[in-house]
Amino acid sequence: MPSLKLALVQLAVGAQKAANLARARSKVLEAAKAGANIVVLPECFNSPYGTQYFGQYAEEIDSAKPSPSIQALSDMARDSKVYLVGGSIPELEKSTGDLFNTCTVWSPEGQMVAKHRKLHLFDIDFPGKIVFKESEVLKPGNTLTDFSTPWGKFGVAICYDMRFPEVAMIAARRGCVGMIYPGAFNQTTGPLHWELLLRARAVDNQIFTAACSPALDSEATYHAWGHSTIVDPYARVVGTTADAEDIVYGTLDLDLVDEVRKSVPVYSQRRFDMYPDVSKIT
Amino acid sequence: MPSLKLALVQLAVGAQKAANLARARSKVLEAAKAGANIVVLPECFNSPYGTQYFGQYAEEIDSAKPSPSIQALSDMARDSKVYLVGGSIPELEKSTGDLFNTCTVWSPEGQMVAKHRKLHLFDIDFPGKIVFKESEVLKPGNTLTDFSTPWGKFGVAICYDMRFPEVAMIAARRGCVGMIYPGAFNQTTGPLHWELLLRARAVDNQIFTAACSPALDSEATYHAWGHSTIVDPYARVVGTTADAEDIVYGTLDLDLVDEVRKSVPVYSQRRFDMYPDVSKIT
Repeated sequence: MPSLKLALVQLAVGAQKAANLARARSKVLEAAKAGANIVVLPECFNSPYGTQYFGQYAEEIDSAKPSPSIQALSDMARDSKVYLVGGSIPELEKSTGDLFNTCTVWSPEGQMVAKHRKLHLFDIDFPGKIVFKESEVLKPGNTLTDFSTPWGKFGVAICYDMRFPEVAMIAARRGCVGMIYPGAFNQTTGPLHWELLLRARAVDNQIFTAACSPALDSEATYHAWGHSTIVDPYARVVGTTADAEDIVYGTLDLDLVDEVRKSVPVYSQRRFDMYPDVSKIT
Repeated sequence: MPSLKLALVQLAVGAQKAANLARARSKVLEAAKAGANIVVLPECFNSPYGTQYFGQYAEEIDSAKPSPSIQALSDMARDSKVYLVGGSIPELEKSTGDLFNTCTVWSPEGQMVAKHRKLHLFDIDFPGKIVFKESEVLKPGNTLTDFSTPWGKFGVAICYDMRFPEVAMIAARRGCVGMIYPGAFNQTTGPLHWELLLRARAVDNQIFTAACSPALDSEATYHAWGHSTIVDPYARVVGTTADAEDIVYGTLDLDLVDEVRKSVPVYSQRRFDMYPDVSKIT
């Protein structure tokens, strides 16, 4: 099995959508030039993160009539010849007026191959530290999502979805070799749980995990944690960074998935006579 | 809700059963004198850890005809007036001749209040590092286990059971405020995964977790990792140690369970329309 080079673009996102799209493009091309096969953008890469922004920056996702961010993502993937996990954008479903937090995934030919609407909305309340209620303006998605590559299947979910172990358990048990999470934890939840959750999903499911954050913008209303991170199936961190704009690279040796599953064979040891298998949805 | 003092006795276990029982007793009394309300002994506290030892050290678990380790545990709990999670011993089921790796839990009155037979047997194979096959001599248990205290319910499982997230998910969703694992990771799996697994179970389930190991005995055939550790519902380590004999104490503020569940309310946000609830066993 060949190895795969993964790149996480920890993008500096600002208030100008056109500038965000241009900056994302230049970073994706830079990562491709450095040899990346799969490139990941952060959650809300075309917009500042905040419930007050989602409506203003939202776009329809319609390949037949591509809106600016969708056209830009298709072009980036095609021009850089990579699989592109296009972070997320606020999505407007025109027929209902509903808004979603949505990740699109693109093939090296510029075709959309997957779309994930954030399943678990980010509603938290740390008194005196941070209150955030995505559900005030967003609706949740209703699908689990993965996409196929020459290196295997990858599951995709967004940020707060990381806190719900079933998402990665199901993806891994259905054959995914990794989970990719565009995400934007903050300066309270980031130091507590960002790396821990990535390593937890990796150790329990013996898969690669990666999360791609925007860079910290101290002037913004939401202070992203940054620290985009790649973890291997032994749950070892293989690439990470601090909170400034950066590209995190990791060479993923796909043989590690089989290796760890032979060493610690939990896949044949689970006691589904004692508890149900969450991946067997009836 | 009052707080609770938890003590993990990282016992130096040797080849003499009577000496192990005497040493355990003195450490449990010491922990009680220091104010502990719940005291935990390590996996295989009456015997060296190894498939070659289990048959020789095994005892029936029968309160009506208490064998030496069972009598010793009952006496320790009663004399120290603590809830005692009695690590584990090799258990012989006389009617079948089967052996199990079994944890008993004792009330401050010296009554056995729970019994857990290790559910997931420790069969691993790290080439060139460690091969271990509990299943060569042991049978697995068939129950999930918890016990009640004035501070709430605690789930109990043993060592390798830690690798199977469903055990803690079910315990927490059924009202346990903590999971306690007598365990004996080794010098390969310990540095990789011991603390990570404890913190993973804590963050996903917003409960306390604790694991109690024997001390490292460099002369033994199995080199225990030690590092007995207590983690709070924010997944912060609140007590730990290295690999020598020690008692790890932690004061558990039970209000933290509600606090973290209000801050990050995953208990009301899970999408059981998208995946089954493992705690609802049909």
